[in-house]
Amino acid sequence: MCSKLESLLEDSMEEMISIRRYLHRHPELSFQEKQTAAYISDYYTKQGIKHRTGVGGNGVVAKVTGAKPGKTIALRADFDALPIQDEKEVAYKSTVPGVMHACGHDGHTAALLVLAKVMNQMKSELEGTYVFIHQHAEEYAPGGAKPMIEDGCLDGVDAIFGTHLWATVPTGKILYRVGPIMAAADRFEIEIKGQGGHGAQPHTTKDSIVIASQLVLALQQIVSRRINPIEPAVITIGSFTAENAFNVIADKARLIGTVRTFSEEVRDFIEAEIEKITRGICLASDSDYNYTYFRGYPPVVTHEKETLHLAEVSRGIKEVDLVEEKEPEMTGEDFAYYLQKVKGTFFFTGAKAEGVEVAYPHHHPKFDFDEKAMLIAAKTLGIAAITYHVKEAQKALV
Amino acid sequence: MCSKLESLLEDSMEEMISIRRYLHRHPELSFQEKQTAAYISDYYTKQGIKHRTGVGGNGVVAKVTGAKPGKTIALRADFDALPIQDEKEVAYKSTVPGVMHACGHDGHTAALLVLAKVMNQMKSELEGTYVFIHQHAEEYAPGGAKPMIEDGCLDGVDAIFGTHLWATVPTGKILYRVGPIMAAADRFEIEIKGQGGHGAQPHTTKDSIVIASQLVLALQQIVSRRINPIEPAVITIGSFTAENAFNVIADKARLIGTVRTFSEEVRDFIEAEIEKITRGICLASDSDYNYTYFRGYPPVVTHEKETLHLAEVSRGIKEVDLVEEKEPEMTGEDFAYYLQKVKGTFFFTGAKAEGVEVAYPHHHPKFDFDEKAMLIAAKTLGIAAITYHVKEAQKALV
Amino acid sequence: MCSKLESLLEDSMEEMISIRRYLHRHPELSFQEKQTAAYISDYYTKQGIKHRTGVGGNGVVAKVTGAKPGKTIALRADFDALPIQDEKEVAYKSTVPGVMHACGHDGHTAALLVLAKVMNQMKSELEGTYVFIHQHAEEYAPGGAKPMIEDGCLDGVDAIFGTHLWATVPTGKILYRVGPIMAAADRFEIEIKGQGGHGAQPHTTKDSIVIASQLVLALQQIVSRRINPIEPAVITIGSFTAENAFNVIADKARLIGTVRTFSEEVRDFIEAEIEKITRGICLASDSDYNYTYFRGYPPVVTHEKETLHLAEVSRGIKEVDLVEEKEPEMTGEDFAYYLQKVKGTFFFTGAKAEGVEVAYPHHHPKFDFDEKAMLIAAKTLGIAAITYHVKEAQKALV
Amino acid sequence: MCSKLESLLEDSMEEMISIRRYLHRHPELSFQEKQTAAYISDYYTKQGIKHRTGVGGNGVVAKVTGAKPGKTIALRADFDALPIQDEKEVAYKSTVPGVMHACGHDGHTAALLVLAKVMNQMKSELEGTYVFIHQHAEEYAPGGAKPMIEDGCLDGVDAIFGTHLWATVPTGKILYRVGPIMAAADRFEIEIKGQGGHGAQPHTTKDSIVIASQLVLALQQIVSRRINPIEPAVITIGSFTAENAFNVIADKARLIGTVRTFSEEVRDFIEAEIEKITRGICLASDSDYNYTYFRGYPPVVTHEKETLHLAEVSRGIKEVDLVEEKEPEMTGEDFAYYLQKVKGTFFFTGAKAEGVEVAYPHHHPKFDFDEKAMLIAAKTLGIAAITYHVKEAQKALV
Repeated sequence: MCSKLESLLEDSMEEMISIRRYLHRHPELSFQEKQTAAYISDYYTKQGIKHRTGVGGNGVVAKVTGAKPGKTIALRADFDALPIQDEKEVAYKSTVPGVMHACGHDGHTAALLVLAKVMNQMKSELEGTYVFIHQHAEEYAPGGAKPMIEDGCLDGVDAIFGTHLWATVPTGKILYRVGPIMAAADRFEIEIKGQGGHGAQPHTTKDSIVIASQLVLALQQIVSRRINPIEPAVITIGSFTAENAFNVIADKARLIGTVRTFSEEVRDFIEAEIEKITRGICLASDSDYNYTYFRGYPPVVTHEKETLHLAEVSRGIKEVDLVEEKEPEMTGEDFAYYLQKVKGTFFFTGAKAEGVEVAYPHHHPKFDFDEKAMLIAAKTLGIAAITYHVKEAQKALV
Repeated sequence: MCSKLESLLEDSMEEMISIRRYLHRHPELSFQEKQTAAYISDYYTKQGIKHRTGVGGNGVVAKVTGAKPGKTIALRADFDALPIQDEKEVAYKSTVPGVMHACGHDGHTAALLVLAKVMNQMKSELEGTYVFIHQHAEEYAPGGAKPMIEDGCLDGVDAIFGTHLWATVPTGKILYRVGPIMAAADRFEIEIKGQGGHGAQPHTTKDSIVIASQLVLALQQIVSRRINPIEPAVITIGSFTAENAFNVIADKARLIGTVRTFSEEVRDFIEAEIEKITRGICLASDSDYNYTYFRGYPPVVTHEKETLHLAEVSRGIKEVDLVEEKEPEMTGEDFAYYLQKVKGTFFFTGAKAEGVEVAYPHHHPKFDFDEKAMLIAAKTLGIAAITYHVKEAQKALV
Repeated sequence: MCSKLESLLEDSMEEMISIRRYLHRHPELSFQEKQTAAYISDYYTKQGIKHRTGVGGNGVVAKVTGAKPGKTIALRADFDALPIQDEKEVAYKSTVPGVMHACGHDGHTAALLVLAKVMNQMKSELEGTYVFIHQHAEEYAPGGAKPMIEDGCLDGVDAIFGTHLWATVPTGKILYRVGPIMAAADRFEIEIKGQGGHGAQPHTTKDSIVIASQLVLALQQIVSRRINPIEPAVITIGSFTAENAFNVIADKARLIGTVRTFSEEVRDFIEAEIEKITRGICLASDSDYNYTYFRGYPPVVTHEKETLHLAEVSRGIKEVDLVEEKEPEMTGEDFAYYLQKVKGTFFFTGAKAEGVEVAYPHHHPKFDFDEKAMLIAAKTLGIAAITYHVKEAQKALV
Repeated sequence: MCSKLESLLEDSMEEMISIRRYLHRHPELSFQEKQTAAYISDYYTKQGIKHRTGVGGNGVVAKVTGAKPGKTIALRADFDALPIQDEKEVAYKSTVPGVMHACGHDGHTAALLVLAKVMNQMKSELEGTYVFIHQHAEEYAPGGAKPMIEDGCLDGVDAIFGTHLWATVPTGKILYRVGPIMAAADRFEIEIKGQGGHGAQPHTTKDSIVIASQLVLALQQIVSRRINPIEPAVITIGSFTAENAFNVIADKARLIGTVRTFSEEVRDFIEAEIEKITRGICLASDSDYNYTYFRGYPPVVTHEKETLHLAEVSRGIKEVDLVEEKEPEMTGEDFAYYLQKVKGTFFFTGAKAEGVEVAYPHHHPKFDFDEKAMLIAAKTLGIAAITYHVKEAQKALV
C-alpha cells in the first residue's frame, strides 16, 4: 500500500511542479487569498473530491473516506504569500508586484493537492478517513488556523500531520522534535510619554529618547538575568521611533517588539516583567507610558507518539537520507492551534537542492526551494497518515 | 536730543503697530522673504532714505547720515518667520497656512523701520552715520547674517546693537550680559550600521537599536563627567529613528542631535568626544557608523563697553523699570557673526504685557508679545546709538 | 545477583549512616583532606581490599576483581567539604569551625565504601573488575579529578558511573540526562584602569566606576542578543569593587565573574566577546583594562548508552519511584574530566525525605539530606556496574 | 593709615614666616588641634590682646578695639591640618607622621596673628572693632565654623573677610567673585538590597551589581538632562562595593558619593532626584534600597559690596599685580556659614612663587606655598577691614 502510494506520487511529480509554479506566479496576501482558494476548490471539483470552501475565512477542507473503518487523520497545508517583491529570475516568477510566495506555501499546497488526488484514487484500499486542510493566512496573526478550527475543520479528527519545506536544509533530510519545536510569537508596544521642548533646555523637559534608550537596555536583563538559562526566550525591540527636528527634545518615543518563548509560564512572566521594568524606568524619570501586549501564536508542541511515528515512517522513504532531531526554532507557526486540539506532529522537510552552497533564507526576495522536496513531503505525510491506524491497532493489542 | 527721539517714537507708536500687524499677517519662511524685503524697501523709498536691497540674499540695508561727524553705528532687525501654524485668534493672525511670525521678528522690523524714519527726521542734529540692517533668515542655519556681512553690510561700521523681544519676560525689563549671552548651536548625525535579521534570531544580527540606545546613554557622560562643571554645555539627541516591523532586528538606527556650548574649545572637545564614544560602542558591538558634525552659529559674545553703555542708557528710558544682568541662554542667534567683526552688544527686551500670567514661549503656535515693547526696543537701540559718540569722545579726553 | 547486592546493602545501612556521620563531624577543605583520605584507606585495609593512596594528591583508588572476565567499571565518590559554618542542630554537626559537608560528599563516600565492601564480598559471583575512585577536591577548581586521571585512576577503565545526592529532589527519584547535564564553569576578572581625582572635578579624571557600570550593562547583551537563544549560557559579575572616600573619583574598578556554558564553541565565543566589549567601552572612555579568563571544569557530557542503561536499571530498584530526564544544570562538576576519557554517566539521586516541605539548598549553612538516599545511590551505582557486561554482551550478539 | 599698616606688616615678615614654619612642623588633625589653639592663645597673651579660647570647640577669638567708633569687622583664619604624610624635603617639614599642613592653614594663621599684633599697635588710629577668628576643623564636616558661630564668634559683627592662599595661582594675583564662589559639598549613600544566590542561577536572584550599575548610569542624567545647563552641579559616585566570590550573585551593593551645587534649590532638587531614580530602578528590578543624604557645607556666597570693596583695596597694594574675577570652584569651605550670617567676602590669594612651573595642588603630599603670599593676605585683609568704615560712611552721605 505504501509503495503504491509512493509510486503514484512519483508519477504525479510533473503535475505537482506545474501546480506549484502556477501558484508561485499568482501569490495572494494573507486573508486575501480568494483566487488561490478558488483554484484549490476547482482542483477538488475536477477530482470529484468532496470539499467545503470558505472555512473560517478562505480555508478549504476536502475529505477522502477509505473503504475500511479507521481513524480520522488530518493533513494541513497553508497557502498565503508575503508582501515581498520577487527578485528571482525564473519563468515562474511572481506576476504580482510586491507579493511573493517567499516561504514555500505554494509547495505545501501543490504537495497536498496531489496527495489528496492519489489517496482518493487508492481509497478502496485505505482504512479510515482523511481530511485535507488547506489553510489561509498563516503568515499574519491572528492567522487562519484558529477560525478554521472554530469552523469545524478538526471535528472528528483523531490526529494531524503538517510539514514545512525548509530551503536551508538539504533535500532528503527530515527534522522532527518531540515537544516544543516552534516558539510562541508575541508582539508588544510601548509608548514613552515624556515631555517635549527645546533641545537647548533639557531641564524643562522629560527626554523620551533617553528614557526609551534606558528601557531598551534594561529589557536585556530579562533574558540575561531573570529567566532560567535553560529556557529559550527572545525579547527584541524591532522598532524605535522618535522622529523630530535636531534641536527638539522628544515628547514621545515608541518601541515595538516581539517576544519568543516555549512555555505559557515564561510568556506570562515576560509580559509582566516588561511592564514592571517600564513602570520603574518611567517612575525614575517622572514620565508615563502606554503598554500593550498582543498574544500571537502559541508554541508548536508536538506529541510524542505521533512524532516518533513520523520519524519512523520517514526512515522508510527512499528519497530520505537522514531523519534527525531538530533544535527548537524561535520562529512561530499557527499549526500550534491544531496541536492544542488533537494529537499530531509538525516537521521540517529539507528542500535545498544538491549543489546549492548557501540557500536564500525564507522571506528573502530571492527565496526558492528544491521542488523534489514536495514529493518527499507528500510521501511522508501520506504514509504517516495511512499507517497511523496500524500503529494504533498494535497498541490496542498490547 | 534723546528726549526728542523718545517723543518722536512715541508719536509713531500707531504706525509701528500697524507695520508689525501687516507683517504678522504676511509671514515668509527663511530664505524666501521676497515680499517682506520689498515691503521694507518700499518703506525706505517712501521716506527718501537711501538703501540697498538684495544684500547677501534678501537683506536690506539703509543708511542715515547725521550732520556732524562721528562714528558709524549699525542697528539690526531680522525679518523671517517660522514653519508653524498660527493658532491665535486675533485680527492680525497669519494669513499664510503653516507659516507664522512666532518669534517676534515682525516686531523687530517694525521697531527698526520707525526708528530709521525718526532718526532720518532728526539727522541735522545727529553726529555720525547710522546703518539699519534688515536681515533675512535668522531662524535657519547657515543664516542670513554671514552672507550679508560678506556682502559688505558691516563695512565702515564701528559698533552694532541688536535686541530680541522676549515674550516671557515682563515689558519694562532689559536684560544684558557682558561676554557669552547665547550659545553656539551645532547639529550632528550618527548612523549606526548594525546588521538586520529576524527578530527571533538575535545571534545572527547586530541589533542597531540596542547599540544606539547604549550610545544615547553613553553620550550623557560627556556633560556629566567630561566637561568642567562650570562650563554650560548641552548635548541633545532630538531624533532616534529605526522603524521596522515588530519581528525584525534593525539594520540601522539614526540619531540626530544638537550641541550647545559657549567656547570653541568645548565645542571642539564635544565634537571629538561624540565620535570617540561612538567608535568605542561600535567596536564593542562589531558594528559601524557614519558621523557628521555641522557647525551652526557661533556663541553670541557681547563686548563689555558697548554692553555697559547699553545698560546705562536703558536705565534712563522712562518705560524701562529694570535693567538686569541675564544668565546665558543655551539657544543660538546669528547676531554672533556681527559681534565677531565689530564691537557691540545684543540684549533682550521684555515683552510680556502686564496681567499676562504665563506667556506662550517663542516658537509656540499661540505665541504673541506686548506691542508696547517695540517702543522700548526702538528707544533703547536709538539712544544707545546716538549717544555712543559722546561716550567715545569722553574716553578720548581721559 | 542484583537482589543479593541489594539485600547486602540494606543489611549495611547502619554502617553507611555511621560512616557518613563520622565524616560529617570531621569535614576537611578541598586539597586538605588528609584525615578523610586516611579514614578511607583504613576502611579498605580492614576489608582487605587492595587500594592505592595519594593518587593525584589526596585521592584513594580501590579495586575489586570479579571471578569471571569482564569489563572494568569505575565508580566515583568525592570527599571534600566546604568553607561554611555548620548551623544545623544535630548530633553529627561539624566539629570543625567554618568547615562543613554542605554538599553531601560525606554521603557519596559512605555509600561507595559500603558498596565496595559488599561487592568485595560478592566477588566470586561477579564478572569484570571494579575500580572505586575516592576523589578529593571537587569543590575547588582546578579540582582533584584531573590529577587523579593523570595519575592513572582511569587506566584500563571501560566505563564510569557517578552520582550526586540532591537534597532538593524527593528521595526515590533518579534524574538522568543524555548529553550535557552540567555546565562548564569559568572565572574571569576585569580591572578597569581609569584615572582618579577629586570628586568635585570629574573633567580632570576618567571615572572608573561609571566605566565599569557601563561595562556591566553592556555584558548583559552577550546572553540577550549574541548567543543562540536555545544555547543555555550565564555570565555573572559576582564582585564589583572600587572602594574610595565619598569625595574621590575612582582610579580603578575590579570586576570578577563566572561564565557557564555547555559547549566549547560558546565558551570560546563568550571569552572573546567579553574582551571585545571591554575594549570598546574602554576606548569610548579613553581608559585601559586588564582581562584574564580562567577555564574551570568543562561541561559534564554523559554518554547515551551508559545513561540509558543507568536509567533502565534504576527503574528496577524498589526504593526508586520515578526515573526522569533532567534539565541541564548551570552548576559545574569535575566529573566532566572522567567522561572526556571514558564512556559513562553522571546522575542525580533524590535525597529529600518525605515530609520535608522545602529543603535547604546545597552550600547552605543548614544543608542536610535524607540518609536513605545513600542506599539508593549505592544500589544504583552497584547494579549499573555489575549488569553493564550483560548489556555489552547482548550488543555483541546483535 | 593704610601705608603704616603695610609698612608694619612688612617689618614683621620674618616673624610671620617663623610662626608659619613652627605650625608647619606641628600639624594637628581637625577637631584635635589642642596644641595649635594653645599656641595661638599664648601669642595673644604675649601681645596683651584680649581673647577667648575653647570657642565652639578649639576655636580662639581675639578682639582689638580702635579708639574711634565704627563698625565691627571680623577676619578669619583656619588652623587644622590633614591626614597626609609630608613628603617635602624642607627644614620645616612636618614632625608628625601622617599629618601635614597640606592646605596652607598654617599660613592663614601666621598672617592673621601678625596682622592682629600690628592692628593692636595701631589701635589709637583705628575706627571700629576688629574680631580675629581662629577657626579649628575646616577640613572635616560638620566643621568648626558652625559651632563657633553658635558660641557667639559673630555676635555684634557687621562684616567678615577671609582668604585662602592658593598655591596653583601666581603670587601677586587676587581672585574674587561676587555671589557663589565655592560649592556646597554633600555626601550620600545608597545601599541596593537585591537578593543573593548562586552565580549560575541568576533567575533565582535579584542581581545587586546589575541594579547598582544601572543606577550609576541613570544618575548621570541628573546633570546631563535635568538641571539647567548654566547651573554648575556635580554628582560623583566615589565608591562602589559589592565584594563576593566570583560564582555568587551579589545580595547587596553599596554606593557612596558626593554632590556639589551652588544653590539650595538645586541641592534640594538633586537630593530628591537621586532618590526618585533609585526608587524607580529598584521598582524595575523588584529590589529595595536604603538612601541617606548628609548636608555638608553650604555654598560660599559672597556679598557684592564687600567683594567689590575687597577687589578695590587689593588693587592698591603694591605686591598685587592682578585682581581678577574667579570662576566658581566646585570644592567647599565652611566659611559659607559666616556669610550666611553677616555681610562679607571670601577670596583667593595667589601663592605660587615666581619660577615655579607647576605647583603641587592642595592636599598633595608635596604641597607648599610661597610665603610672600602671607604678607599679601595680611595686607589685603587688614586694609579691607580698616577702610570698610569709610566706604560705609560715604554711602551714608549719599
